[in-house]
Formats: sequence, C-alpha cells, structure tokens
Amino acid sequence: MLNSPISGNTMQRPLQIIDLLRFAASRHAQQEIVTCRLEGDTHRYNYSDCFQRSAQLADALAELGIQPGERVASLAWNTYRHMELYYAVSGIGSVMHTVNPRLFSEQISWIINHAESQWVFVDLSFVAQLEEIQQQLPKVKGFVVMTDRAHMPETSLNNVLCYEELIAGRPEQYPWPDVDENSAALLCYTSGTTGNPKGVLASHRAMVLHAQATVSADMLDLRSDTVLMPMVTMYHVAAWGAPYAGPLSGCKLVFTGDKTSGSAMAEIIRSEQVTVGLGVPTIWLTLHNYLAENNLTVPSLKRVCVGGAASPVGLVKTYDQQYDVYWQPIWGMTETGPLVHSAPPQADILSLPKEQQYQLQTTAGRPVFGVEARIVDADNQPLPHDGETRGELQVRGHWIATRYFANDDLSSFPDGWLATGDIAVIDSKNFMKVVDRKKDVIKSGGEWISSLDIENIISQHPAVNESCVIGVKHPKWDERPLLLIVTKPGESLDKETIKDFLTGKIARWWMPDDVVFVDQLPHTGTGKLVKNELRRHYQNYLQEKLS
Amino acid sequence: MLNSPISGNTMQRPLQIIDLLRFAASRHAQQEIVTCRLEGDTHRYNYSDCFQRSAQLADALAELGIQPGERVASLAWNTYRHMELYYAVSGIGSVMHTVNPRLFSEQISWIINHAESQWVFVDLSFVAQLEEIQQQLPKVKGFVVMTDRAHMPETSLNNVLCYEELIAGRPEQYPWPDVDENSAALLCYTSGTTGNPKGVLASHRAMVLHAQATVSADMLDLRSDTVLMPMVTMYHVAAWGAPYAGPLSGCKLVFTGDKTSGSAMAEIIRSEQVTVGLGVPTIWLTLHNYLAENNLTVPSLKRVCVGGAASPVGLVKTYDQQYDVYWQPIWGMTETGPLVHSAPPQADILSLPKEQQYQLQTTAGRPVFGVEARIVDADNQPLPHDGETRGELQVRGHWIATRYFANDDLSSFPDGWLATGDIAVIDSKNFMKVVDRKKDVIKSGGEWISSLDIENIISQHPAVNESCVIGVKHPKWDERPLLLIVTKPGESLDKETIKDFLTGKIARWWMPDDVVFVDQLPHTGTGKLVKNELRRHYQNYLQEKLS
Repeated sequence: MLNSPISGNTMQRPLQIIDLLRFAASRHAQQEIVTCRLEGDTHRYNYSDCFQRSAQLADALAELGIQPGERVASLAWNTYRHMELYYAVSGIGSVMHTVNPRLFSEQISWIINHAESQWVFVDLSFVAQLEEIQQQLPKVKGFVVMTDRAHMPETSLNNVLCYEELIAGRPEQYPWPDVDENSAALLCYTSGTTGNPKGVLASHRAMVLHAQATVSADMLDLRSDTVLMPMVTMYHVAAWGAPYAGPLSGCKLVFTGDKTSGSAMAEIIRSEQVTVGLGVPTIWLTLHNYLAENNLTVPSLKRVCVGGAASPVGLVKTYDQQYDVYWQPIWGMTETGPLVHSAPPQADILSLPKEQQYQLQTTAGRPVFGVEARIVDADNQPLPHDGETRGELQVRGHWIATRYFANDDLSSFPDGWLATGDIAVIDSKNFMKVVDRKKDVIKSGGEWISSLDIENIISQHPAVNESCVIGVKHPKWDERPLLLIVTKPGESLDKETIKDFLTGKIARWWMPDDVVFVDQLPHTGTGKLVKNELRRHYQNYLQEKLS
Repeated sequence: MLNSPISGNTMQRPLQIIDLLRFAASRHAQQEIVTCRLEGDTHRYNYSDCFQRSAQLADALAELGIQPGERVASLAWNTYRHMELYYAVSGIGSVMHTVNPRLFSEQISWIINHAESQWVFVDLSFVAQLEEIQQQLPKVKGFVVMTDRAHMPETSLNNVLCYEELIAGRPEQYPWPDVDENSAALLCYTSGTTGNPKGVLASHRAMVLHAQATVSADMLDLRSDTVLMPMVTMYHVAAWGAPYAGPLSGCKLVFTGDKTSGSAMAEIIRSEQVTVGLGVPTIWLTLHNYLAENNLTVPSLKRVCVGGAASPVGLVKTYDQQYDVYWQPIWGMTETGPLVHSAPPQADILSLPKEQQYQLQTTAGRPVFGVEARIVDADNQPLPHDGETRGELQVRGHWIATRYFANDDLSSFPDGWLATGDIAVIDSKNFMKVVDRKKDVIKSGGEWISSLDIENIISQHPAVNESCVIGVKHPKWDERPLLLIVTKPGESLDKETIKDFLTGKIARWWMPDDVVFVDQLPHTGTGKLVKNELRRHYQNYLQEKLS
C-alpha cells in the first residue's frame, strides 16, 4: 500500500447496513414489499413501514439484552419479518446469523453452537425441527416464533416469544448507533461435502458495497420500477443480498414465503407483475414445466437471474423463445458475497446472433466493479485469459471473505485472493466459465478431464435422470473417468448407447472407461452430489476390472 | 460510533480511482471516448486505449519525479488527454489539481501557489494566460502543453514539454500501487464572492463512492448504452465527476473540448447520438435558441441534467414539449462532490400531471444514497421537512468536505455537517428547493425575504435582461428589499410597471421598497452576481431616501 503524506478532507462516515433501509424509507418510502405469509394470506406494506417496524424490533432486541457483536440466529423463509430482523440485528451492531433449515439436524445444531447464537428467530415451518434439537443447544436462551399471537403453535421449545407481541407498542423510531463499517454484520455457513460447515462473516462495508454492485446495470440492474422476486432464500447467502439491494434500488420486493411450486410462482409473477426473478436453474425449470403444461405465459417477466449451478443452454433458449425472458447467468458463492460475475442483457451480447448469445448466457459472465477474477495453476501462478487454458478460479475484492469464522484453516486464502475450488476458463473479454470443481476434476496422464462437461452432455440424453463422473485409480493414467447413471423410471440404457451418444461430443481421450448403472446417487442436505463418497466406493473399480 | 467486539472477515481492499478505469478497460473495453480536439479534428478511442495511455503517462510522471501527495495542476478543457491526466496523477498517489482558467489571473496564480503545484498541464487555449502569470509562480518547475509536436506553440513558458512526446514509447502497463482510500486524490478550488478561493480536497474513497452514486438510477442513471456529453467542465468540480462515473458505468463519453456554441452542441449531439447532457441552465438555453432558430431537433437526446443554478420552469416545459427531453435538476457544490440531490424521471414524478411534474423539476430533487440533507435554524437546530419552513441547508455523507485545504476556518463545518450557505425548504417527500443564498436573504422585521424568489419572477418579464434583489438598511424593519434591474437593449421600464408585475406573485410585504434601473451588474469570474459589492454601494439608499 502506497503511503501518501496527505489525506483527503472528506467526512468519515461508516458504510452501514441500516442506512440502506433508512434511505429507502426516505427516497422510496411508498414502494411495496409484498409477502406470501406462512399464515396463508398476502401481506403488503412499504419501505417506510419496514423501517419503522425494524426500529420497534431493534428496541425489543436491546431489551432482550442482545449485545453488539452477538450473533442472532434465524431459521426462516423470505418474508417481511425476516427482512426486519436483518436490519434490526445489524442496526444495533449485532450479527445476523441465517441458518439453512434444509441442512441435516446435526449440522444445524453444530452451526448454532459454533456461532454461539443465543436467540433463535424461527418461522412456523421450522418450529418442530428446533424442538427436536433444542437439547443440543445449551447456549440458546430463547426462541422467537415469527408470527402473531393467533398463530402461535403449541411447542415444547423453552422460553418462547411471539414476534408480533415482542415488537407491539414500541417506539417507532430507534436511535440507531453509527457502527464501524468493518464490524461484523452477517454470518452464513457454507456446507461442503466434507468436514464441518464453515462460517462466512461479512462486514457492514462488504454488504453495502456488494449492494451497490448488485443494483448496478452490470449485475442485477435493479431500479425503482423493478419488481424483484428472489427465489433464492434469505437463509442461504442472504438471498444473494436482495434484502440489502432492494432498498438501495427502491425496487418492489416480492417475498414468496414457503412457496416454491410452479403454480405458486406463476400466480405471484402474474398478480404482482414481477419483472426480475432470482434463482437456481431448477426453479426456472419448475416454472417452465408448469407454464408449459398449463399453456400460460408470464408477460411481465423480463429476466431470470440464475446461479448456483451451470446454466443449461436448453433452458436459456426456452426462456428466450417461449417467454421472451432473458436468462441472465450469475456466478458467486457464500464466500464471495455472493455476487461476482454476471452477463446481463447489454449491447455487446444482444448485438450477437442468437446462437452466440446463448453460448455467452451459459458462461458465468464477467466480474462487476469491485471484484477481480483470475485463474492460476497448481503453483498459484496466473494463467492466460485465452478462453482455453484451465485453472483454479481466484477472486478478490471488497466483499470477498478473507478467512472463515473461528476457523484456523487459511488454505483457501492464498496471497490476498480467495481460491474458489472451481476450475474455470476466462476468455479475452473476461467471460468466465466454470468447467469443474477442483476436487472433481480427473487427472489423467497429467491432463485434466472435466467431470462437469461430461455430465452436462449426458444430462441431455432423454433416458438419463441423473449422472455423475468421477476419477478412479488407473495403473497407467493415474486416474480415468468412470460414469455413473441413474436412468429415468421405465427407461433402460446400455453402455454402448451411452458411449455412442458421447462420441463426437467430447475428446476421444475423455471417454469414460466404463459406465455403471445405479438406482440412486448420494446428495448433501442442500442437494449437491457427494462425489467423495462415490470416489471412495469406486476407487479400485477399474483396477479390479483390469486385473 | 458503536464499538463492536467482532470484525467481519472481509478483504480490506482500498476504494481507489484507478480501479474505475481498470474496470472499464476490462468490462467495457471497446466503449468509445470521443473528443472534439483543440487541434480541430475529432479523436476517438476506447476505455482500453485510455487505460493504456494513462499507464504511459503515469510512467512519465514518475520519471518527472512527481511524488505521492504532490499536487499536479491542469488548465484544460474536457478532452481524452485531460482524462488520462486525472487517472495517471491519482493512480500514482498524487493529487489532480484542476484549475479553472475562467478565474481572474490573480486568483489563478494564488490558487497554484496555495496548492504548491509544481507541474502544470495546459491546453493550447490557455498557454498565453499562463505566460502572463508565470512570474507569479515561483514554485512551478515546468509546464506540459497537452498536444502533439506538430501543434506545439511558440511560448515564453519556461521548461515546456509536449504531452505526446512525454508519453510516447513508454510501457503500456504500469505497476499501479494500491493507494490508501483516504489519501487525497483531487483538489478543486471554489471562488466565492469574498476572500481567497478555498480548496476542496477529495479522497479516493470519496470519489469512488460518489461515482457509484452518480451512475445509480437515483442520480445520473448512467449505463453502458448511455452516450454522455458533459457540458460542465473538468476544470470545475471535475465535470460533476463524469470522468469517474463514465468508466464505472461503461457509457460512451463525448468530450466537447472548447466548443460551447449552440451549433457545435447540436452537431455533436446529432452526430454522436448523445442521450444525456450535463450542464448549467444557460447551456441548455443556448442549445434551445440554436435549435429553435434553425428549426432543428435532437432526437437521440433523452435527458439534460441541470445544476449550478435554479431550473427555470419555462425551459423545463420547452425541453419537454418541443424536444421530448426530460429536464433533470441536480443540486450540489464544490464542497459536496458535487452531486447530492436530483429528480430523475422516476414513476413517482412521471405519474403526476404535467404541471406538477414541472414544479418538481424546478426543485433540486432528493438526496441519493450516501448523503443526507437537513435544514437548520440560526442555532443549528433541525427544522421540519414540511415544504414551508426555511432554514440553512446542511448535508453530510461519504463525499462531503470536512474542511478546506490548508485553511483553518471551520465555520462551514458544524457538528459533522457541511453548512452550505443555501437557504432551502424540504418537503415531506424530501424534495429540496433552494430559496436563497444565506448571505443574500433579506431579514425584514425578523422574517426572511428570498431575493432569489423575486429575481426568478422578475426574470420572466419580457423587458428585463437581468435583475438583482438585495437587502438594504431600514430604520424600522432592519432590512428591506431593493430591486436593481438591467433592461434589455431598446426596452424601457418604469417602477410602477415592475411593481404591478410583481403584485399577486409575491407576498405583499415582500414587495421591494424601491426599484433602481442600472446599466449593468457586477459579476465574478465564474459569472455569479457580486451582491456584497451592491449591498455596500446601496446600503444607505433607503435611509437616505426616507430621511
């Protein structure tokens, strides 16, 4: 860092999360936040109301004795109450700790204990889950069920409060303190396929700068006339920061509560005139299936922003051709804020022939201002951005994690960069494409084979339900690919058919040495394939076959 | 500031100016920067070229021995070379010191000496001006004329270099250092009507956060498909930050060099398909006059963003009705980055009946995220935002000055706010309107009369060329308004006609006690009325008349 002898004469104000909502309550006061409530009805209010109720909640949190820096946990869907909790907790200088209720029970209790969260805010849907594990949560002082008195459940949870009762009658303004911008604001755990979950602890500054980048035209392009429906959850990577970016942009927010079906999404999009959706590819497949079966359209919808998995070109085309919806790829992970790359509908993409557009829409896009990306070799040396060279993706920037919370393993954070564990190529225009996870790549005779590439091709075979390619031991090549396939119910396949299907679509030396048909494949709590389990099971498969 | 015991685990990267251009050179590499060169031709290149030449210039600056923190002065128009200078100077950790060549010579030499700038970059237009004052610049080591060898002038300046020769053949990449985000980056002097000019020294952080706010839909709404023509100058408040916001947004930049005529603007707008212009009201009056006289239109133009003076409702209407161009008011000053308030074309304005829209377009608009505004009374106590109460406007935020450079007078910076010296009203929706300068407001019997309000009304009289209302001493009311008028050539007016014209348009007790017809009014180097000179001259006018 250069040492300049002269500082600017500029006010030193902290970048703090509460200012995002304070701003919306002033500039976009009347803009709506709509929620499909777990109680069954639809709730509507505006940014001004949200700021006021967040103030009431902050007053309650202070009275509960919640301290600056203390973690406050939530197990909750996307709702206006969850958003109030985000702002109230960070606003008093405490840390919003979102817990993913889809994880296994042992992981949930491990996470709450590791974070030392003492209060847990919980939606009606997850009360029973907490009841089962409350004996494993000795540090938790109490629970707040996020509903009103009329809907409070019978529960065996100890020291249970009702959210609406907790905030009722409290002052509508709160003396929000200024908070050091580098202090902790948000804690999200990421669960890999091995080891314990790892906590990503983001600062106020990180989340405000991430929100600025998120609303920009180079990322989600949120504006006061956007109607945003995040189908990514506030319990996982803060719904890609939507609760922060929404108020900053002044967009209308549509929270879907526990609704994830195609019919529910279609109805909400049509009734609320949603223009932009956020979600993983599966969500948009679900929506498409419902729309196609019912011969419906969603005319208000302009874009779906899609991350969490590779974008299949078939869906990109379907959304363009059948719905006139732009499929906008996003790349990021819990450790990265999460948003880093995207390919929004800008002139340099839209001016291309459709087939080239679609290809760019299946990349991850390019980094937004505030983050940088590169690929490196095994010695951490930068590799060329030539669209061909493969290396591990590294990123750095204003909202990238620099370590895990209360975890001494710094192996993912070399030289001021985050090593993502993704193998990627970057082209000369900085479009990035993930070709595999580092641990899943197959090292055959010193060269790399991408398991993901092969799986993507196999997934297009009409009789295949799911597939998985792993590297297994080989006496000559160190590793060779083995392909595991689950066929669709009622379908049958043989090895030769599959190999014929792959021929010409992949390099000859990428052809899997064998194909194994299985009834099912193992998954994590968040639905990811557990490849290391399969690798363990099949590690000697080829050697035994060859011997 | 709340003291949180726990910091976020987020990378600490500096917010630095060079990253704006670095980003554009990567993400929007092919986007154009077009310049009407002082040499007479039109120059075109892109963000990638700009970044490369900035690197070459940085290498040259380093070789000249320019140090971190050292000020480097410019007297230059809006051109690509001036933009390169912005980035090269800040990029090596030095301070870009833009000097307004329209100031009086004594002010220019005072400013260069006060800033201790040792190198001066100068456009062909201003070489003669510098020759005249170089004897008053003992600390200046040398001058760089911003042109190529073929256009180098004969000059008596000492130690003169040629810009293109200076950078030719140098490495196209520069090892840009990371710079502490709070270090100084940009120095602009503001010249009031009294005393010496005052320097506003902005940090890297301030200018990056200002750029983020500038590109947002709540301010200038710059995007990669915007074609931006700043008719505000890089020598005055950094062209409202356009050289920073342009690359961040990836918009096309159109630099007009020394061209300010209506015909030149019309031609450039039409040939470059300009969509957004920045400028003071006079500029857009000039453009309108030319278009109207020549029966021309500017179909590409969508918005003019207008600050520096109140927006006259007549021009707001003209631009809407004749050109379908949205007149977007802006408020700010050198001490405020400059951008703070605006009223872009958003739904809450566009949904109103036209006459109400026009009224909002003559306010200053509302603050963008990152800055707050309030009005206070004489005891610095906040006043209500009710659309009626008048008070001094105060602002604070991430890019607001906290003091003047090398100046011990802190009277404008009470309690962490900037006292703007403007008298304003703020309505319940936070629309702000400046009603007068604090020093120009007339205190009559304990109440305030706005000189600006009366001047605005008088300006609509067809025979009035210019007017000025000042407070002069009165034995009973302390002060009463005196109206000074310059009539248009060939027109004549009498006092009763003027008073009749005002009747019904202002409160009865606001009626000026007398009207004086004068041949001309005194102005500063930047065209502002020198009211304190008039107040001195006329202070006893009423008392003498009454006695």
